[in-house]
Amino acid sequence: MFYCNFISLQILYCNIGNPQSLGQQPITFFREVLALCDHPTILDKSETQGLFSADSIERAWKILDQIPGRATGAYSHSQGIKGLRDEIAAGIAARDGFPADPNDIFLTDGASPAVHMMMQLLIRSENDGIFCPIPQYPLYSASIALHGGTLVPYFLNEATGWGMEVSELKKQLEAAQSKGITVRALVVINPGNPTGQVLAEDNQREIVEFCKKENLVLLADEVYQENVYVPEKKFHSFKKVARSMGYGEEDIPLVSFQSVSKGYYGECGKRGGYMEVTGFSADVREQIYKVASVNLCSNISGQILASLVMNPPKVGDESYDSYLAEKDGILSSLARRAKTLEDALNSLEGVTCNKAEGAMYLFPRIHLPKKAIEAAEATKAAPDAFYARRLLEATGIVVVPGSGFGQVPGTWHFRCTILPQEDKIPAVVSRLTAFHQAFMEEYRD
Amino acid sequence: MFYCNFISLQILYCNIGNPQSLGQQPITFFREVLALCDHPTILDKSETQGLFSADSIERAWKILDQIPGRATGAYSHSQGIKGLRDEIAAGIAARDGFPADPNDIFLTDGASPAVHMMMQLLIRSENDGIFCPIPQYPLYSASIALHGGTLVPYFLNEATGWGMEVSELKKQLEAAQSKGITVRALVVINPGNPTGQVLAEDNQREIVEFCKKENLVLLADEVYQENVYVPEKKFHSFKKVARSMGYGEEDIPLVSFQSVSKGYYGECGKRGGYMEVTGFSADVREQIYKVASVNLCSNISGQILASLVMNPPKVGDESYDSYLAEKDGILSSLARRAKTLEDALNSLEGVTCNKAEGAMYLFPRIHLPKKAIEAAEATKAAPDAFYARRLLEATGIVVVPGSGFGQVPGTWHFRCTILPQEDKIPAVVSRLTAFHQAFMEEYRD
Repeated sequence: MFYCNFISLQILYCNIGNPQSLGQQPITFFREVLALCDHPTILDKSETQGLFSADSIERAWKILDQIPGRATGAYSHSQGIKGLRDEIAAGIAARDGFPADPNDIFLTDGASPAVHMMMQLLIRSENDGIFCPIPQYPLYSASIALHGGTLVPYFLNEATGWGMEVSELKKQLEAAQSKGITVRALVVINPGNPTGQVLAEDNQREIVEFCKKENLVLLADEVYQENVYVPEKKFHSFKKVARSMGYGEEDIPLVSFQSVSKGYYGECGKRGGYMEVTGFSADVREQIYKVASVNLCSNISGQILASLVMNPPKVGDESYDSYLAEKDGILSSLARRAKTLEDALNSLEGVTCNKAEGAMYLFPRIHLPKKAIEAAEATKAAPDAFYARRLLEATGIVVVPGSGFGQVPGTWHFRCTILPQEDKIPAVVSRLTAFHQAFMEEYRD
Repeated sequence: MFYCNFISLQILYCNIGNPQSLGQQPITFFREVLALCDHPTILDKSETQGLFSADSIERAWKILDQIPGRATGAYSHSQGIKGLRDEIAAGIAARDGFPADPNDIFLTDGASPAVHMMMQLLIRSENDGIFCPIPQYPLYSASIALHGGTLVPYFLNEATGWGMEVSELKKQLEAAQSKGITVRALVVINPGNPTGQVLAEDNQREIVEFCKKENLVLLADEVYQENVYVPEKKFHSFKKVARSMGYGEEDIPLVSFQSVSKGYYGECGKRGGYMEVTGFSADVREQIYKVASVNLCSNISGQILASLVMNPPKVGDESYDSYLAEKDGILSSLARRAKTLEDALNSLEGVTCNKAEGAMYLFPRIHLPKKAIEAAEATKAAPDAFYARRLLEATGIVVVPGSGFGQVPGTWHFRCTILPQEDKIPAVVSRLTAFHQAFMEEYRD
């Protein structure tokens, strides 16, 4: 444990979307099934009945029967185990009200490798551009850089709750084209990271229309699909939005990324995830499969978990009540924490924070006094990095400066997760408030 | 199940190193520990004592205590959980008799991502070359191609049991340099894939000396380190060989790849592995860490399993006897299968097969009659691909043509695993023998 400055302060990690590292407990049913699939020889022992729920045992048998030879230690098909993809496709269809095809699912070790795969395929040279929101989750900038492409930014509009604006997209597209960049795809993160907004359905339709018109692959990062905290907003997948606009498979190339790391499950360490790939030609599909097969397959526990999060216990199952209580407990607590932190941030002098609608983050804007900016420059730090460092030193609270995600030049932000356990939130609020007041006093113009 | 031609023949998969898909059972102790770490709430229940060995329970507690917050569902350090790296480093030190540093260990989802990471870092442009053995495991050619580099081949000498020859290395190095290629690293696979040889220690010393002299990074694929079947050969890690020659950390940059997919464990589906990285500057280490951190971390079950294979039960542990019986049962059966298949292949007209010393493969050479080569050409197939296809159609046996791995031009081979369960080996031998005789009759010159 790292202690701060003069006082011994426990570090409060608000920097990474890693819920279980901060005490969030895994969903019991999911872990029961994983344990049984890891060690199936206990499945028919009598003691197992006393230790595991009946439906976890039943589900484990079902999953084992979906695996050729019940071999959970074998490489699977490079897209993932077919029976698990069937369950995921059924889960997507139930979520969206539109059909999903198991052959469109590629299971991966978390969402990151799926993003890399698509970048690998989309980027041919530095003249290929990928539209990314600013602020963005740095996986995208890193992956584009690693694959030698060009990140084409579009700025989210903080004033409209981090909405996307087609006028901005058009402006940036023209600017890129004038530099000889061929923009091939558009990344959208919904719910947003680091910005925490949930896109309005109208806004999603505009994006679909734009991609359709400009022949862009729509790369939809939908890993926070279960993390929506306000009653007036709902998650809609981009595939559902496109289909409900009447666009079919052949009309728009669309990739949706999902992960077991987020949602109410928060199983970051399991590295499970998938992408659903629709609207590509058979040739391109062949190439995606080829790239997927270079690493043989994703880890089977992660594959199983991805099928579980898309097909959790149902009404009538023995685990249903406890599953629901665990899930609702986590999500309603996250919603309370989001609101408390949002309010606390908005009560600070010179800080404005958009509504915490979804995901796991707040991205407040800090209006720093000129003296603070000069003090930062004197230490060769970005002003928000300077603020974040001072915050850490004074309080033990770790946040990520906005400059790590990109922001409108001359504005300053930080990303703060809503993940500290609820009993820690008052300490986050009081320490942050006291620090901010002192900081503003110190640097008041 | 796919059935052949006219007769209903069960497919016999001899194409992929995927032991558990063919019925090899996992090591019980490893799976007990994984299940307990997946669902730790059962650890202190009384029924658990009846279902799990005492040392698996003890080990699970120990591992949980090595994980911050006991959170097996959290992202770990991007190199992997420190306590597990400690165990792996201790295992390497015990294996080699030379110290190993946990800070040199990078845990990865199987060995493949580790190889990609190193290629990512080594290859700057198509003018950067990576020495690869021919025949080679196609992960290397794929990874070099994906990262835009140039594969510089060196041919293994079939006549000396697939030995490496420094004269060949020198010749190919000069040839590459004359084309403007900067050769940056040398890949060596020991025990060999697809060739199944175990390098003699003298040969390893020559390779170390060559890399040292030519300033090459030595990339040692050592994933088959537990798969040695002949008493006269022993596995020596390249690090051990280098250190025993007096070369220290600073003298030679060396990466060793290990995986949970091979050995007697064969846990392909778990995607666990690591690389041990020594002899690089702090700058380069920083870059390796940066690339590792893009995907956050490897899966925790795979990390745990990697620590278990490098630190299995010891004398006196409750599981030791059963562990040893399972391990020896698998390895001695693999050795018998290897020998039976090697002898059967060598008894075939026009087939020569080097000794099956290690790994999981045989790579026999087939001297095809001219008429067979012409028949292959008429179907636009490589002669060994033609042979493999005819073999599959006639017998249900799946092998991989040598052309998939590379071979001396004008020679023809196939790779055949030794992995079908022992009761299937007589069928492999008799079907293969009958097919080969008929094939040779059909195409005799």
